[in-house]
Amino acid sequence: MQELTLSDVVVALAGLYPPATAASWDRVGLVTGDLAQPVRRIHLAVDATLAVIDEARAAGADLLVTHHPLLLRGVHSVATTTAKGASVTSLIVNDIALYVAHTNADVASPGVCDALAGALGLGRVRPLEEVDGVGVGRVGELPEPVSLRSFAELLSGALPATPAGIRVAGPAQARVQRVAVVGGAGDDMFDAVRASGADVYVTADLRHHPVLEAREEARGGTPYLIDAGHWASEWLWLASARDELWRVLGERGTTVELHISTLRTDPWDFVVGAEPGGTP
Amino acid sequence: MQELTLSDVVVALAGLYPPATAASWDRVGLVTGDLAQPVRRIHLAVDATLAVIDEARAAGADLLVTHHPLLLRGVHSVATTTAKGASVTSLIVNDIALYVAHTNADVASPGVCDALAGALGLGRVRPLEEVDGVGVGRVGELPEPVSLRSFAELLSGALPATPAGIRVAGPAQARVQRVAVVGGAGDDMFDAVRASGADVYVTADLRHHPVLEAREEARGGTPYLIDAGHWASEWLWLASARDELWRVLGERGTTVELHISTLRTDPWDFVVGAEPGGTP
Amino acid sequence: MQELTLSDVVVALAGLYPPATAASWDRVGLVTGDLAQPVRRIHLAVDATLAVIDEARAAGADLLVTHHPLLLRGVHSVATTTAKGASVTSLIVNDIALYVAHTNADVASPGVCDALAGALGLGRVRPLEEVDGVGVGRVGELPEPVSLRSFAELLSGALPATPAGIRVAGPAQARVQRVAVVGGAGDDMFDAVRASGADVYVTADLRHHPVLEAREEARGGTPYLIDAGHWASEWLWLASARDELWRVLGERGTTVELHISTLRTDPWDFVVGAEPGGTP
Amino acid sequence: MQELTLSDVVVALAGLYPPATAASWDRVGLVTGDLAQPVRRIHLAVDATLAVIDEARAAGADLLVTHHPLLLRGVHSVATTTAKGASVTSLIVNDIALYVAHTNADVASPGVCDALAGALGLGRVRPLEEVDGVGVGRVGELPEPVSLRSFAELLSGALPATPAGIRVAGPAQARVQRVAVVGGAGDDMFDAVRASGADVYVTADLRHHPVLEAREEARGGTPYLIDAGHWASEWLWLASARDELWRVLGERGTTVELHISTLRTDPWDFVVGAEPGGTP
Amino acid sequence: MQELTLSDVVVALAGLYPPATAASWDRVGLVTGDLAQPVRRIHLAVDATLAVIDEARAAGADLLVTHHPLLLRGVHSVATTTAKGASVTSLIVNDIALYVAHTNADVASPGVCDALAGALGLGRVRPLEEVDGVGVGRVGELPEPVSLRSFAELLSGALPATPAGIRVAGPAQARVQRVAVVGGAGDDMFDAVRASGADVYVTADLRHHPVLEAREEARGGTPYLIDAGHWASEWLWLASARDELWRVLGERGTTVELHISTLRTDPWDFVVGAEPGGTP
Amino acid sequence: MQELTLSDVVVALAGLYPPATAASWDRVGLVTGDLAQPVRRIHLAVDATLAVIDEARAAGADLLVTHHPLLLRGVHSVATTTAKGASVTSLIVNDIALYVAHTNADVASPGVCDALAGALGLGRVRPLEEVDGVGVGRVGELPEPVSLRSFAELLSGALPATPAGIRVAGPAQARVQRVAVVGGAGDDMFDAVRASGADVYVTADLRHHPVLEAREEARGGTPYLIDAGHWASEWLWLASARDELWRVLGERGTTVELHISTLRTDPWDFVVGAEPGGTP
Repeated sequence: MQELTLSDVVVALAGLYPPATAASWDRVGLVTGDLAQPVRRIHLAVDATLAVIDEARAAGADLLVTHHPLLLRGVHSVATTTAKGASVTSLIVNDIALYVAHTNADVASPGVCDALAGALGLGRVRPLEEVDGVGVGRVGELPEPVSLRSFAELLSGALPATPAGIRVAGPAQARVQRVAVVGGAGDDMFDAVRASGADVYVTADLRHHPVLEAREEARGGTPYLIDAGHWASEWLWLASARDELWRVLGERGTTVELHISTLRTDPWDFVVGAEPGGTP
Repeated sequence: MQELTLSDVVVALAGLYPPATAASWDRVGLVTGDLAQPVRRIHLAVDATLAVIDEARAAGADLLVTHHPLLLRGVHSVATTTAKGASVTSLIVNDIALYVAHTNADVASPGVCDALAGALGLGRVRPLEEVDGVGVGRVGELPEPVSLRSFAELLSGALPATPAGIRVAGPAQARVQRVAVVGGAGDDMFDAVRASGADVYVTADLRHHPVLEAREEARGGTPYLIDAGHWASEWLWLASARDELWRVLGERGTTVELHISTLRTDPWDFVVGAEPGGTP
Repeated sequence: MQELTLSDVVVALAGLYPPATAASWDRVGLVTGDLAQPVRRIHLAVDATLAVIDEARAAGADLLVTHHPLLLRGVHSVATTTAKGASVTSLIVNDIALYVAHTNADVASPGVCDALAGALGLGRVRPLEEVDGVGVGRVGELPEPVSLRSFAELLSGALPATPAGIRVAGPAQARVQRVAVVGGAGDDMFDAVRASGADVYVTADLRHHPVLEAREEARGGTPYLIDAGHWASEWLWLASARDELWRVLGERGTTVELHISTLRTDPWDFVVGAEPGGTP
Repeated sequence: MQELTLSDVVVALAGLYPPATAASWDRVGLVTGDLAQPVRRIHLAVDATLAVIDEARAAGADLLVTHHPLLLRGVHSVATTTAKGASVTSLIVNDIALYVAHTNADVASPGVCDALAGALGLGRVRPLEEVDGVGVGRVGELPEPVSLRSFAELLSGALPATPAGIRVAGPAQARVQRVAVVGGAGDDMFDAVRASGADVYVTADLRHHPVLEAREEARGGTPYLIDAGHWASEWLWLASARDELWRVLGERGTTVELHISTLRTDPWDFVVGAEPGGTP
Repeated sequence: MQELTLSDVVVALAGLYPPATAASWDRVGLVTGDLAQPVRRIHLAVDATLAVIDEARAAGADLLVTHHPLLLRGVHSVATTTAKGASVTSLIVNDIALYVAHTNADVASPGVCDALAGALGLGRVRPLEEVDGVGVGRVGELPEPVSLRSFAELLSGALPATPAGIRVAGPAQARVQRVAVVGGAGDDMFDAVRASGADVYVTADLRHHPVLEAREEARGGTPYLIDAGHWASEWLWLASARDELWRVLGERGTTVELHISTLRTDPWDFVVGAEPGGTP
Repeated sequence: MQELTLSDVVVALAGLYPPATAASWDRVGLVTGDLAQPVRRIHLAVDATLAVIDEARAAGADLLVTHHPLLLRGVHSVATTTAKGASVTSLIVNDIALYVAHTNADVASPGVCDALAGALGLGRVRPLEEVDGVGVGRVGELPEPVSLRSFAELLSGALPATPAGIRVAGPAQARVQRVAVVGGAGDDMFDAVRASGADVYVTADLRHHPVLEAREEARGGTPYLIDAGHWASEWLWLASARDELWRVLGERGTTVELHISTLRTDPWDFVVGAEPGGTP
């Protein structure tokens, strides 16, 4: 049985999530590591936090695959005086390569948005918008109309639990069937959502002004909005990436262990004073 | 008893919240109305939504004072085909003037940040940062150290209720005493917060990446972060503005009615799947 | 007989003057009004001045169609403290919708430039330049060569009278036959005019430096230049727009009254010290 | 008697019109010539047209002083294929140095605006605005109020004749006393004019939109506007510059001949169809 | 025999080196002169220095053809107070037209890069990169592999001598066969060089950081780098241009003399302390 | 005897070369390492090449101090696929901290320019220019005038040997006494050099166009120019930095070994075809 090198895995990942399909501002691909180093254990997580790197080290991982770029903004130092530098240093000292698949994983099929659509059981899934020949976001149909509250509960059941849960803007009893999804921060896609005729839009990191303006523009009607949490909405992809990597690397007759991080990198620890049912 | 005109109220508001202290990108002051029109009833709200304008009309208001600019981005049309246009049209048709005090109200004393600091009972309140001679944000001390959870509950009790409540990043039992506050979206002030030595920072509209990066940089320690909700964190100012206007206009021997909107313009209607105490 | 709504007229105007053919910096379409409001009387003018709005109101107009955008630069306020705000407020208070067809009317056939070319009796009329697939400006031929002075008098007879009249740069006795026309300010099209081989260029709003440089470059020869006045050179289009609207709306079997403003919005009131024949 | 060199005259001109007071976008100073060449005859004109250069050559001039920069935009060629290149070539072939005093002459005292204010008999003349420590434009008072028409006739009598004359926006019988003046194109100074309380503003090169917007903003009242012609409004300065140069060079005990060009470089040759008294 | 005019030669040069193929930032074509002037003697040089212009004048040249633009950055003055102005003045006073073929000569076939490739005896010469449909740089093969030192000596023998000679980065005994060439400053083409698989890259004006980074990236291997001197690497083109002009003008049956400047415009006069063989 | 930590050395270096005096585009300070790590051996070099890092590792260094930033442009990856990434990885794997003092070392006293001035024996050394309160470059006087060739030989004797040596533009026999120096690339300081009245300017990385234009502007006279080599002109500073660090750290009673790299990071390996004495 042949031993895998980082080079082999990078080729496999680039096949699944072609770097050329990433957004122009994005920074994806290999962040640390040497193409010749062996890879026996791969760890998957949304964010390369210091705790996740420790977890990967404890698990004996040679490679950490994350969704979010560690160095999205260019750095001029990797001294441990900054958290980014400490992360890079810890990765190198522990011989852990880091590979990022971000907006290229968002648009891939299967990818981040597909994972979300799949977990919701959407049918007739199609891109929400075509950007430079790449399908961005997804829109699909529930098998039958359900209330907005029921839909939110369905979504909640599909996602990992967080203290803040899922925020919904729209009347709980309204019926929804067509659903648009964009994992992570999707507040730049409201026009495409409206054009798609979606009843409800599931994304995350929604701030006051864009949401209020979108609700005013909708005059109380569709599309309703759901903020599913940035981490939670992208976490579903980890299982998809693990399975795809397993499939592709397995075709080569090699063996590698793949683990999904058990750490929640959503930064919120607890919530106080929520009135989940709404206020009078 | 002399009748107030819009001109009189504009002069009073510009005295309380000098437009020159607003941020360069901001758009404050009179948005609709005629300086000669009489003002007998003033309505105050965070946002000039269509529902708030209806409420003001029903209340017989001549003037609506809001915190958020209705036309922050310049418009080329006020036809009712857009929500902004419908709002402007409704204001004009109903003879309701609109006046905005935004970042100039944030930095005023008393202003938005003072209202938040006062509700928390902070002592030794001082600006978080000086920008062009104007004190931005506030930092102060609780009478004695309390746990982060107790502090969050104190904050929750001071703010109006919302479905999502207050999100906290940090260990519930950690002790906090020095508190930094910035009403609304304050994720551009993390450097000043760190420089202030604050134990906890209360602001709103915090997204995944800035919060996670700030928590990584803090290596689990201070400053802890609280997202108090954009609308809730600014709502406290309405009572302050009402009282200040009453005082200033009263000195002129005039009478005017002042009402605070009872509508919540936080756009989220309900929450599903929250685990407020945190997850294992 | 079915009643027209603003929506119907907007569709008709967008058919005659497609918004997508407007320049990227332009702001055309509906500025005030509600698509559901009835339209019985339409007023047409070059500029939406306060006087023109009063005239439209006195005429019982539901809709004012103008060539120049009222809000070309985005506004953050429509309070009556500015003239633009007072115009918007007056339109809304008087239930008058405002619709703008500007650079899209310039390039349309028939449009602003065609109206000018037609009034001069030009033959073989063709675009002066193709920009993004749209023909901009017009160039055509007089039936036979005439002196520059005779041509200017022909033009003057076709246009509405103004105090300043028509300024001409070139020798009065020179012969001209090929004529380029651009209604309004056309000093950015000198290159296309030269390339067209035009003997004379009719446009407006010409300032000292571009004209002097163009005359120097021509070394006293063609193309000669004529400043016909901004308002006057565009005014001819109003009759064209009226007739086109009448035709299109008439095909629907509806009735509507159409009026052209009788106000001159050229801002100059009188002239002193002119020596029309030139100075020694 | 010592012979003057170009170097001497450049020093004198820089003393009268310090280059450092020119606008940052302006290009003033020596354009052609050699500092060591003798200067016996100086020609003054508003523009260095080919005809003016011929006139200077015929007059035996060694130096041409103009108000407008010949090369305001940088050139990459002075071949005679362009008019600018032909002008430069003609100057060099004929050993004529060219010196430009533009916005530095506008702001100088005495300078372009002073020449205009002086010709109108204004008293209490002061800068219209201070920009970077330099007084730009002038505002002053007529000895007593006169009608706008009388004022325009006074202005017309002070300026050289042109075919187009002087355009006035405002009621002929309105009374004016405070007068703002800016030679050449002054449509960027409307705010300062309004702040000065001027009854009438004399400048040139005014286009439709700025004038119409200013008249709308004034709601028919002051400040009234006068377009005096770009060339005519700056021509008065030539006598001032000649006298100042004569004085400064005379103090050195040298002799030099100074001539003002008799050519009109206003590019308009004749006018047709004017109705100077206004239209009904 | 018909006399040549500058217009004829400009047409010939534009045919050989089409201006439209120049880089967008470049400024090529006629810089001084009149299209109608006769051309009997043409002088060719890399740079239009004051000494080269004197040489051209002494040779009785009517036209100077150079590779480098005299006025790459636009000028606002051609007074003799600057060297550029003195050059322009000298050209005009001496009736010498100046014509520039720069990046359009670099990319032409035959052109600057071809001259270099030809002198090295490269075979299978092809563009190094296609930019907007134009082949930039050249890459080709030596008949057989030679040592880097032998190659440098071959290059040295082909180029005119200079004090500094040819700098080489790479091991003297390494074998090279594929050669990339870019006349003048080519440090923006390292990516294309690497993509071409060249063993050695010949260009000029190489500074410390780009060279050191390229050598680090190559980890000591290929592509090796040679700085052949800016002037020397472009000088070879002069003979090519002379021959091409002779051929094209000769086809018209006209006679003209063509001379190549004998002046070295490489600015370095001597070198001290070189250890050509390298240091221990 | 107390053990030094990286934190101690960083404090010492920041005292000698305050980061705030670096240029705004520069990136100085700690690049790799942990402030708590012990420092027993410090290695100094101009560039952190892979060979220099190997040399530092072999020497048992804990800290490498270089003049040039390794990560001047921000990086998004430090994988070994790039040379920069391989350098960072090698530093971290080998526990070698990297500290950069660049433009802040250029302007320090003693600093890079002082080292150059001192080696030349200049007297009355003063800044060449003040930029934001910091003295940039140096200018001073030789004890007595010498020929340009003699001066170049003096400079050559003071600098480490390189294949290319020192290039000189100017006549060998000209006398020079006032000398301006800027270590590294100084072609942006020609104006300050001219203003200083220097006879000769010593700097490096000079390209064809700036040098030729400066020589033309000087019309063959002063300032003459010398390109001393980028690496060589900055290498002298290493001894200065070593001595200063020794002094400052010694005052604390600590011991540390300091070594200067023996590797030449000037990238040129050999030179062919030079004619050092100049060509006829």
